[in-house]
Amino acid sequence: MAIITLTTDFGTTDWFVASMKGVILGAEPRATIVDITHEVPAGDIRAGAFVLAASYRCFPRHTVHLAVVDPSVGSSRQAIAVRTAEYWFVGPDNGVLSFALAQEKMLLEIRRLDNKLYFRQPVSNTFHGRDIFAPVAARLVQGVQVESLGEKLEDFVRLPWPQPKSELKGLFGEVIYIDHFGNAITNIDSAALARLGKREWTVATQSRQLGEVCQFYQEVPANEPVAVLGSSGFLEIAVNGGHAARALGMKIGDAVEVK
Amino acid sequence: MAIITLTTDFGTTDWFVASMKGVILGAEPRATIVDITHEVPAGDIRAGAFVLAASYRCFPRHTVHLAVVDPSVGSSRQAIAVRTAEYWFVGPDNGVLSFALAQEKMLLEIRRLDNKLYFRQPVSNTFHGRDIFAPVAARLVQGVQVESLGEKLEDFVRLPWPQPKSELKGLFGEVIYIDHFGNAITNIDSAALARLGKREWTVATQSRQLGEVCQFYQEVPANEPVAVLGSSGFLEIAVNGGHAARALGMKIGDAVEVK
Amino acid sequence: MAIITLTTDFGTTDWFVASMKGVILGAEPRATIVDITHEVPAGDIRAGAFVLAASYRCFPRHTVHLAVVDPSVGSSRQAIAVRTAEYWFVGPDNGVLSFALAQEKMLLEIRRLDNKLYFRQPVSNTFHGRDIFAPVAARLVQGVQVESLGEKLEDFVRLPWPQPKSELKGLFGEVIYIDHFGNAITNIDSAALARLGKREWTVATQSRQLGEVCQFYQEVPANEPVAVLGSSGFLEIAVNGGHAARALGMKIGDAVEVK
Repeated sequence: MAIITLTTDFGTTDWFVASMKGVILGAEPRATIVDITHEVPAGDIRAGAFVLAASYRCFPRHTVHLAVVDPSVGSSRQAIAVRTAEYWFVGPDNGVLSFALAQEKMLLEIRRLDNKLYFRQPVSNTFHGRDIFAPVAARLVQGVQVESLGEKLEDFVRLPWPQPKSELKGLFGEVIYIDHFGNAITNIDSAALARLGKREWTVATQSRQLGEVCQFYQEVPANEPVAVLGSSGFLEIAVNGGHAARALGMKIGDAVEVK
Repeated sequence: MAIITLTTDFGTTDWFVASMKGVILGAEPRATIVDITHEVPAGDIRAGAFVLAASYRCFPRHTVHLAVVDPSVGSSRQAIAVRTAEYWFVGPDNGVLSFALAQEKMLLEIRRLDNKLYFRQPVSNTFHGRDIFAPVAARLVQGVQVESLGEKLEDFVRLPWPQPKSELKGLFGEVIYIDHFGNAITNIDSAALARLGKREWTVATQSRQLGEVCQFYQEVPANEPVAVLGSSGFLEIAVNGGHAARALGMKIGDAVEVK
Repeated sequence: MAIITLTTDFGTTDWFVASMKGVILGAEPRATIVDITHEVPAGDIRAGAFVLAASYRCFPRHTVHLAVVDPSVGSSRQAIAVRTAEYWFVGPDNGVLSFALAQEKMLLEIRRLDNKLYFRQPVSNTFHGRDIFAPVAARLVQGVQVESLGEKLEDFVRLPWPQPKSELKGLFGEVIYIDHFGNAITNIDSAALARLGKREWTVATQSRQLGEVCQFYQEVPANEPVAVLGSSGFLEIAVNGGHAARALGMKIGDAVEVK
């Protein structure tokens, strides 16, 4: 089994993703390549990091997770590969891997990618996805010698995760992601909700009272807003049968409270 | 051979589809997963049912067709798997499988999915695609004992199919789907057209006379409307080199006549 | 290894691409199918030809490249397969394969596809992608006898490639493609730039002076325009962290000069 996942902001209208897949399959014909998404907003490292963190654990052990949201491609930012107890992660060292890595219990190895023998030649200055990350990912699923990748690093760039504030009167969080359905996903996770205990907490956005946390969308009437514990483990604001972000005017950064 | 097709309204901007694929590959590494589409309009069960029905027969025997357009996820709607002579179908019992199943000659088995041993745990209330349908689909391609899936059912939810009206003076149908090219696909099928016989029938929309049914788009001049028997076996209204829905203002439900 | 790439204008909202994949997998279960893109603008043969030409060489030898941008489907345009030293190409003979084929050193074989035994029956008049090109592509990866495909042809339809004009005072080219990031890719390639030699050449669009050719986007301040040698080997106009086509009002056909 040799699974490589791809998370990028390359879109699917051009040939960029296919070029990476061609390079991977040329190096490792048995690779199974799975797109996580290529619709990360252009250059939005934080969104890419969130998408990867929300899904990587659904994949079996030994999967190689490749993420490229890389506005500084060609400049001095480094290329890295990080091994954890279960996975490899590979991409630019700009934080795009860091939300996923923050969830991993053991970081076994952090390597800078500087072995040019593993790169596609010539290396373009603007497409390291194709010329560096794709061929290295193929090597990783083949079980390359870790030492051969490049210099050992002590750490990698970590994006700050916006922690919700926990106070006596409740939890104070914010919207961190709007999904395809318009659901506004917050940074308030199930563990934080569990610590609140069983009192009757109600959820509120800046403009709306939403009542208690529900189990599923249809607990409220059609087109009514509802707060549910979503499938990625975070509290989310939805509208039953509707698009919460549009209906409620919600956007990333908006305050959400559980009181 | 172990093919699983996916038809959903999850979009491709987030991680939802990839999560399902990760779960499937974790359970059955040899699975070949094929996206039918993930761009079914959010919650539009009928559109999802049509897309599945239009394409599932292109796949070889033993393919497992998984469809999730599931606005009632987490509520009391059931999860089912249906075996026909050639395929498995799996999804919520809300009609999304029913247009395809209406085309199948033999329904061998209808089972409610209630064997929790086959689910990903814990089961989220809002993402049965990942936690129930994906792992069960992996079991189905592996040849699970049908009895182990859950209780045997007598029937499943069927969406009403809008039959065209056949009268002496012609066929009276409606637009049931608008495709990517803007072609307006009607519910008037090749069998109904064949029954009309060889007289000189002409096609008309609410606002336009289109002449006889043509063989291909370029039988009319550029930017002119044309009625053709489309590749899914239905009469469709197109514009040669153009976007019929926009050019002619057509939408789902619009009347189309063959007189 | 049996890789088939797909380049179409079918979009991903309907079932068209999946139908082709089902047909391929039914004929050749071991095929690895890779999407190049399905978002070629509807009927834009030139854009499809460019996308294929920009990516096909990333794939390993023996890959079959299938491209369908086919506004004349069903009319008298022919269906062809072309073998080069490294690849097979298959699609309508309308030029969509021609930019890629222009890069290939050896054209070993040009065949018209007229062996109906290889087609899916009945052949629809509007979907040769599913009924002709997909099943033939499956045959090609299986190593079919070339003679059995159909009549040998002497040539195929070639789209004119807009050559940049090389004069004493510089290179005069034009924008040929706008990518997902808004980068405006020109027809001025690395070879033409190399022939200019080492003098201080500067790049200009119709409305802007951009300075010298840079190595990567972040060589200029954020939101400033920059000319770089892009990853497909062509000079492109970008905006660091921005969308050049929108920010600079650039579109296909716009003049770009290196003086």
